[in-house]
Amino acid sequence: MTYLLGIDVGGSGSRVALRRAAWVRDVSDVSAAPDASRLELLGDRIGVTAEGSTVPDAVLALIERAAAEWPDEFAAVEGVGVGATGLATLVERPADLVAAVERAFARLAPGRSVGVAVAIDAVTGHLGALAGEGGVVVALGTGAIAFGTDCREVWRRVDGWGHLLGDRGGAAWIGLRALDAAVRAHDGVDPAGAALLEAARARFGEVLTWPSQLYTRADRAGVLAGFAADVARVAEGGDPVASAIIAEAGAEAARSAIAALDPALPGRVAATGGVFGAGGGVAAAFARALAAARPDVELVAPAGDPLDGALILAERAAAAEVTTHVPYVWANR
Amino acid sequence: MTYLLGIDVGGSGSRVALRRAAWVRDVSDVSAAPDASRLELLGDRIGVTAEGSTVPDAVLALIERAAAEWPDEFAAVEGVGVGATGLATLVERPADLVAAVERAFARLAPGRSVGVAVAIDAVTGHLGALAGEGGVVVALGTGAIAFGTDCREVWRRVDGWGHLLGDRGGAAWIGLRALDAAVRAHDGVDPAGAALLEAARARFGEVLTWPSQLYTRADRAGVLAGFAADVARVAEGGDPVASAIIAEAGAEAARSAIAALDPALPGRVAATGGVFGAGGGVAAAFARALAAARPDVELVAPAGDPLDGALILAERAAAAEVTTHVPYVWANR
Repeated sequence: MTYLLGIDVGGSGSRVALRRAAWVRDVSDVSAAPDASRLELLGDRIGVTAEGSTVPDAVLALIERAAAEWPDEFAAVEGVGVGATGLATLVERPADLVAAVERAFARLAPGRSVGVAVAIDAVTGHLGALAGEGGVVVALGTGAIAFGTDCREVWRRVDGWGHLLGDRGGAAWIGLRALDAAVRAHDGVDPAGAALLEAARARFGEVLTWPSQLYTRADRAGVLAGFAADVARVAEGGDPVASAIIAEAGAEAARSAIAALDPALPGRVAATGGVFGAGGGVAAAFARALAAARPDVELVAPAGDPLDGALILAERAAAAEVTTHVPYVWANR
Repeated sequence: MTYLLGIDVGGSGSRVALRRAAWVRDVSDVSAAPDASRLELLGDRIGVTAEGSTVPDAVLALIERAAAEWPDEFAAVEGVGVGATGLATLVERPADLVAAVERAFARLAPGRSVGVAVAIDAVTGHLGALAGEGGVVVALGTGAIAFGTDCREVWRRVDGWGHLLGDRGGAAWIGLRALDAAVRAHDGVDPAGAALLEAARARFGEVLTWPSQLYTRADRAGVLAGFAADVARVAEGGDPVASAIIAEAGAEAARSAIAALDPALPGRVAATGGVFGAGGGVAAAFARALAAARPDVELVAPAGDPLDGALILAERAAAAEVTTHVPYVWANR
């Protein structure tokens, strides 16, 4: 019996999953069902400091915890797949992370050869949502990215630039725009944001304290994203400013999906991430905008999440089927 | 002969000035002309880290340098005025900064009693621009704030919330919106930002490197603001997207000024800060928007800069004419 380890590191938390390697591909073989032995551990959210991203620390901490939690299975791991936010832009050399994972296994499971692949979270999200098939996956979590790929020839990334440069339609983006409207109401510049001001005060306290709560935090994107759930609730209550922000988030996601849809890919799009499920109407606005602009494209339900994708990546890494493709995926075989 | 020390700490640099106390108010007395003995030292730009703002460090460093540079005059200082960015929101207790300045003088000029006042930079900007008179001053530097005050009864602050929450129309705000347009062009979402993409590449290099240049920097507002000059140049070249951002910056500043114009204040507005002088049309757009909304308000040229205002604050502190008014000004007398 051999095992696969999948790790998903995101702005709002990180997870590790272990499952039996489904080498027997016959779905009638219940013992090989992918989720039969899947376990999850939750880790910390990721921050960005003057020293760079904390992604490598988070990955190695989750590996340590997996080794402690599942000692027998860990010793039989054949493949590790890691999907991480901001990997390509914030981690100095992602190949070093591959090597660090290898070293961790050499220490924790000596004498074992392990296939390792690390990828940006858009790749693992894609693998999970389309079950390894080609097409576009748009992910709205804390951040936002659309990725059009077949994981072989075509690699078209759109957005994923973080809360200052883009992440259009993501939770931090929603939170930022809602706080802008709230502050305008507070300043007496535009009263339209009054309901959002009330919601923001309920979450963050008095306006004068907001800058010190935000600018001094390494995980400010996560703080901003936390407000998106309140915005969805205010929108559901009928507030026009909150509703417009939510609708625009869906429209932004549709624009990104369309830009990622390389003509060489199947006309297939899946929408993933907490923002689509959080209510308030982002999913409906996205579907409307996509259908209006590209009626030929099929919107499919996601087959799995980024952690499923990390396990698919782990399986391919174990079989030496992953080729390094900078700046999306890095493998050791 | 006694002296005044003024300190201006901003997002893009900090300065200290020394001048003779103009106790003889007769303008025909040339020896008492305010700028006759004014000297300036430049300090570092301010950053925000997980430990909070670096404002207190910058202030104390400039005091040390002033004492070293001007030993004789420093020993005869009677009043210190400090204007600092983000003081009210990012410095834990501004009153502690007053005490720290007092302690620095007790060490560097022992036995001397010094009047100390520290204020948010909007107050020193106001004192400088309107020469101590009442009205509204809107400042567009790295950040943006409008302040309506008579420095006695009326205190109406609008904006100054930093690059994530507001600073509408400031240089970081301009830089952020321009980078948004540039990234949309890069992503294939909207080609309209092509000229801004070219300008941003010339400044920051390839797009994939932008997040690591931005998110890991403590002075990210300064980095964003640095791009505003390029945006103004692209706008002057006729690019419609850059021109729209510049025009909207002026309109935002006008909205803030109007919101700050308490009915109890004289209908007088001054526009200050590097953005107004940087070309591209912000000043013209501001004047147009202000005149359209409030034709009754007089737009006046600034009499002086925030460092002049810090010296006026120092003069009032020396004369015990400054009363602490949280969260705008803190004094030791």
